[in-house]
Amino acid sequence: MKIGVFDSGMGGLTVLGALLRQLPAADYIYLGDTARLPYGSKSQATIARYAVSSARFLVEEGAEFLVIACNTASALALDAIREAVRVPVLGVIETGANAAQVSSLTGDVLVIATDATVQSHAYERACAEHGLRALEKACPLLVPLVEEGWIEHPVTLEVLRIYLAELLEQAERPGLKPDTLVLGCTHYPLLRTQIERAVPDLRVIDSAEVTASQVSAALIEYVHDGTRERRFYATDSVEKFKRLGTRFLGEAIDCVGLVNLGG
Amino acid sequence: MKIGVFDSGMGGLTVLGALLRQLPAADYIYLGDTARLPYGSKSQATIARYAVSSARFLVEEGAEFLVIACNTASALALDAIREAVRVPVLGVIETGANAAQVSSLTGDVLVIATDATVQSHAYERACAEHGLRALEKACPLLVPLVEEGWIEHPVTLEVLRIYLAELLEQAERPGLKPDTLVLGCTHYPLLRTQIERAVPDLRVIDSAEVTASQVSAALIEYVHDGTRERRFYATDSVEKFKRLGTRFLGEAIDCVGLVNLGG
Repeated sequence: MKIGVFDSGMGGLTVLGALLRQLPAADYIYLGDTARLPYGSKSQATIARYAVSSARFLVEEGAEFLVIACNTASALALDAIREAVRVPVLGVIETGANAAQVSSLTGDVLVIATDATVQSHAYERACAEHGLRALEKACPLLVPLVEEGWIEHPVTLEVLRIYLAELLEQAERPGLKPDTLVLGCTHYPLLRTQIERAVPDLRVIDSAEVTASQVSAALIEYVHDGTRERRFYATDSVEKFKRLGTRFLGEAIDCVGLVNLGG
Repeated sequence: MKIGVFDSGMGGLTVLGALLRQLPAADYIYLGDTARLPYGSKSQATIARYAVSSARFLVEEGAEFLVIACNTASALALDAIREAVRVPVLGVIETGANAAQVSSLTGDVLVIATDATVQSHAYERACAEHGLRALEKACPLLVPLVEEGWIEHPVTLEVLRIYLAELLEQAERPGLKPDTLVLGCTHYPLLRTQIERAVPDLRVIDSAEVTASQVSAALIEYVHDGTRERRFYATDSVEKFKRLGTRFLGEAIDCVGLVNLGG
């Protein structure tokens, strides 16, 4: 079983890292569309075009199951990807909503994500299908702060404090009683400790971990120990991918192929 | 005379705004490559590919003179653009270095810019050609802070303080006596007041203003009052371009064409 993992950049490596721990016997092929990132500030039409060409590449390279590790692409392009390829496709929003349902006792959950993900209200819809009320907030500064490496930095703690205070204040008005916070962007797990400290009353859901668990549960019977292939592709600088990707994957990345998807 | 102005996004509208004030009789056509922005974190090969296709579009639309209002594209793709099109091409780095030479009495200047611009050392080279020593620093959080609209925000003032203190500390080691700071990214003029307050001993050079002055000086004899055409194009959401572009241009943008450059 060869699993394709797609993200606009390197954040999806947190999902791949969790998959490697939970389902190590499978083969994996990862694509980061680094030449066209970020997706989170762009339009649905553009995001769908980019995500479909990326998904097609992974299937052409032999992927038999696709994990869309990018929240923005899951929110805005999942239907387009499913129409374009003939293999099963799983997005992180569905898995995040599943996990929120397990976590939440009150039925009220909070979601932090990119601009595009929030504007799509994909989490709100996915949560509603699980009987949950969701309040979403865009936190556009968190990705650049993580990419600057300011994980423990006072500025990052202050930005987190501001965003989360605004979200909790918004939750008070409709009388929500949230007990769960979903990290709706693959960069945010790197700030998990800081986020948990800022909102100690909320259970924090890392969609990377829960996606890996759900993929693992669904596929474990199809996976037999084989070559344990791990292939990495990026659409921009492979050097940068190796250097920064290690931070997200949690282990060294030796070899990355450069692929041109046009544009 | 129809002048094409190119930027990876909307920041170049600060250059167009200055041109409209200084050379209002010309025709203008502006392209923001918003589907593929930002350029500042990407590789030279990718930036050159994107910038060349953008420049070709402007020339096909009738531009007789190109202003590369994007510092990153000026730093990494100016030669590639000049090879690809047959009209004169002016980049903001050359004009910024010209202005720094006029401003600096000590011959030592500081430059703040994106990652890609700094790593290219294009400002260092352009300044050296004018007999100046330049020290460059990447400030990757400033663009997202401007785009979040946190212009007067305490977090932005703190980030500016940190970046500028690091830059001044680096300048002390080689014994530089800087008296001039070049804003090497078209987003930074929106923070000009805050930057001037943070470094009151430095003269701040806004490459948008100085580029407009130099274009105006070079072209004024070719410009005759005509239709005063102003056309805007973007490669992603025209609604977002209209909404956010106004902040950079300083006046309303009514009509934006959507263009697909591939990718």
